[in-house]
Amino acid sequence: MQFRCNTKKLAEALAVAGRAVSSKTSMPALEGILIRTGDHQIILQAYDLELGISTTIEAECRSDGEIVLNAKIFADMVRKLPGDTVEVKSDDKLLTIVTSGAAEFTILGTPAVEFPELPSLSDGASIELPENLLSSMIRQTIFAISTDESNPIHTGILFELQEKTLRLVAVDGFRLAIRTEPVTQDGSFAFVVPGKTLAEISKLLHSESDEKITVTVGEKHILFDIAGYTVISRLLEGQFLDYKSVLGGNTTAHARVNARALTDSIDRASLLITDRLKSPVRCIFESDRIRIKCSSSIGKVYDEVSAAFEGEPCEMGFNNRYLMDALKAADCDEVRIQLGGPLSPMKICPPDGDAFIFLVLPVRLNADG
Amino acid sequence: MQFRCNTKKLAEALAVAGRAVSSKTSMPALEGILIRTGDHQIILQAYDLELGISTTIEAECRSDGEIVLNAKIFADMVRKLPGDTVEVKSDDKLLTIVTSGAAEFTILGTPAVEFPELPSLSDGASIELPENLLSSMIRQTIFAISTDESNPIHTGILFELQEKTLRLVAVDGFRLAIRTEPVTQDGSFAFVVPGKTLAEISKLLHSESDEKITVTVGEKHILFDIAGYTVISRLLEGQFLDYKSVLGGNTTAHARVNARALTDSIDRASLLITDRLKSPVRCIFESDRIRIKCSSSIGKVYDEVSAAFEGEPCEMGFNNRYLMDALKAADCDEVRIQLGGPLSPMKICPPDGDAFIFLVLPVRLNADG
Repeated sequence: MQFRCNTKKLAEALAVAGRAVSSKTSMPALEGILIRTGDHQIILQAYDLELGISTTIEAECRSDGEIVLNAKIFADMVRKLPGDTVEVKSDDKLLTIVTSGAAEFTILGTPAVEFPELPSLSDGASIELPENLLSSMIRQTIFAISTDESNPIHTGILFELQEKTLRLVAVDGFRLAIRTEPVTQDGSFAFVVPGKTLAEISKLLHSESDEKITVTVGEKHILFDIAGYTVISRLLEGQFLDYKSVLGGNTTAHARVNARALTDSIDRASLLITDRLKSPVRCIFESDRIRIKCSSSIGKVYDEVSAAFEGEPCEMGFNNRYLMDALKAADCDEVRIQLGGPLSPMKICPPDGDAFIFLVLPVRLNADG
Repeated sequence: MQFRCNTKKLAEALAVAGRAVSSKTSMPALEGILIRTGDHQIILQAYDLELGISTTIEAECRSDGEIVLNAKIFADMVRKLPGDTVEVKSDDKLLTIVTSGAAEFTILGTPAVEFPELPSLSDGASIELPENLLSSMIRQTIFAISTDESNPIHTGILFELQEKTLRLVAVDGFRLAIRTEPVTQDGSFAFVVPGKTLAEISKLLHSESDEKITVTVGEKHILFDIAGYTVISRLLEGQFLDYKSVLGGNTTAHARVNARALTDSIDRASLLITDRLKSPVRCIFESDRIRIKCSSSIGKVYDEVSAAFEGEPCEMGFNNRYLMDALKAADCDEVRIQLGGPLSPMKICPPDGDAFIFLVLPVRLNADG
């Protein structure tokens, strides 16, 4: 195999594809990147058996072939090469010579046959979405996924299309995030994508760009086409929570509050909370403000944030982290808080509509404090 | 004790003084910051028994007193307070109330008597230096200090004043860094400042500012006055290497080379070197270039950098890290390299003069490669 290509483009492609490379594995091929010559291009593939990324870059191919090179070493090498172009040449014994400018590296590759085949996805439902929309929908739900591997289905995000509405849902038993968006697409589907995949997808998405990307769903896999990169991931299997069942319940009070002011106040209260000192943050909702209290063996804090409040005054305790995550994900100046009594979840929504709904379960408070 | 001051100024002072706070100690007072009211000001002190930092900030003092507050908690708290001013009030029982805007924290302090007294330095030799000069002199030597605590004197930098020349010297047994600067100051002194102290001093110094700072040296301590902060540190005791004895030796060859190009080339070769695979970098000095070779079980690399060379051609092996550290500290486009044969140290100097001299010992090479 022998080809020549642009050093910078190869370095970029290796940096992206490197995200699907296993860091710890007993199969050396999984620590590698597959390079295969094609028609005026080379194809790069990385696959850790869960997540796969492939891309192509323009290249002048002088002799065909394929090889697996250690992803980390090859990526670091290409990034540091002195010349604008790089030539890669490997022989039958997998000895690979990488030349650029005056620099010449010799490394040993792994046979391409040892590299696992990426799953193919020949048919499946497709949906097109602007990059920035998918980026924000993931960001506004991914914080609520479960980290509990014993219930794997909830370590992912549910994607649901129904009646021209796309909905992403994440839940971890203590909180729930739902992000809804009207789409032009007909049809219906429901599948659960691993959180790890979506975290990597998020890094690939430009939150400023409204370029369309394509998502294709098969029976067991999902495929994202994003700006020249194809990302394929397995889907999670199992029964996802029936999120509609937890959305009901009476609303006994609601408040409108500046999200930033409330976040800052809970952030201050969090100074008294550590992994060892897990005190709840007390929120006292009343006429024109939310009062915040917290105490631990470090000390105590009192704070308040002005709010437009209507309904029955109420005192509730929350995990500080969960409240902050939800308020930060809200991504709007003002949020609407709906309460259904001291032991019902708090609902955080946008000032108007329900593009997002974040539910946070309260924690039971002791009488003191 | 009761005072009111500017929140931002207090936060800044706490961030700086916090550098002298013990992170792990059996004495709770050492994890704290001493706050003492003064004349229209408060005095802040931190001291980990090795390094002490004190400063004052303007304050409206309503009742006198002093207290020790946990440095990390108090600094985080003040940084996150909502108001422009903060009021701190502590009672006889050390209960301290910190109020700013609507936020009110209550924490318990430690008695000021438990805080160790900072060493005083009433007399001693003084020298004035511009901030940027001291900053660059430290940066160009600190990389070569020893980390071997069994020979503590070389974990510091020697400051030597002789014949209107200030010289900083660091050595770790494998390399030596000397930085020399003419000064207007008469007199002579020689003392060794702990590397840890100088690392903290470096963070305080603005490398862009030529404001004068004062360094005062006593018998056992050194004091730096930098932009409102007083930093005091113990000096190291022992016999520092007689650096002049290692500076001699014949020069059999010298080269002029672009420092960045040589650094980049050694950086590339370093890709094949790990903690486990400590191969030397081979440098072959000859007529118009330096050839670089390195090989390990990862692979091998060949590279070259053009250089103006005069003298006997020579092949030498080096620790990649030591060469890179010295080249990076050179801080000039071109460096002059002086060689005295394959087993004598390499000397790296500026193109003209000897404002710095970096010595790097070679490593013995095997015959192969």
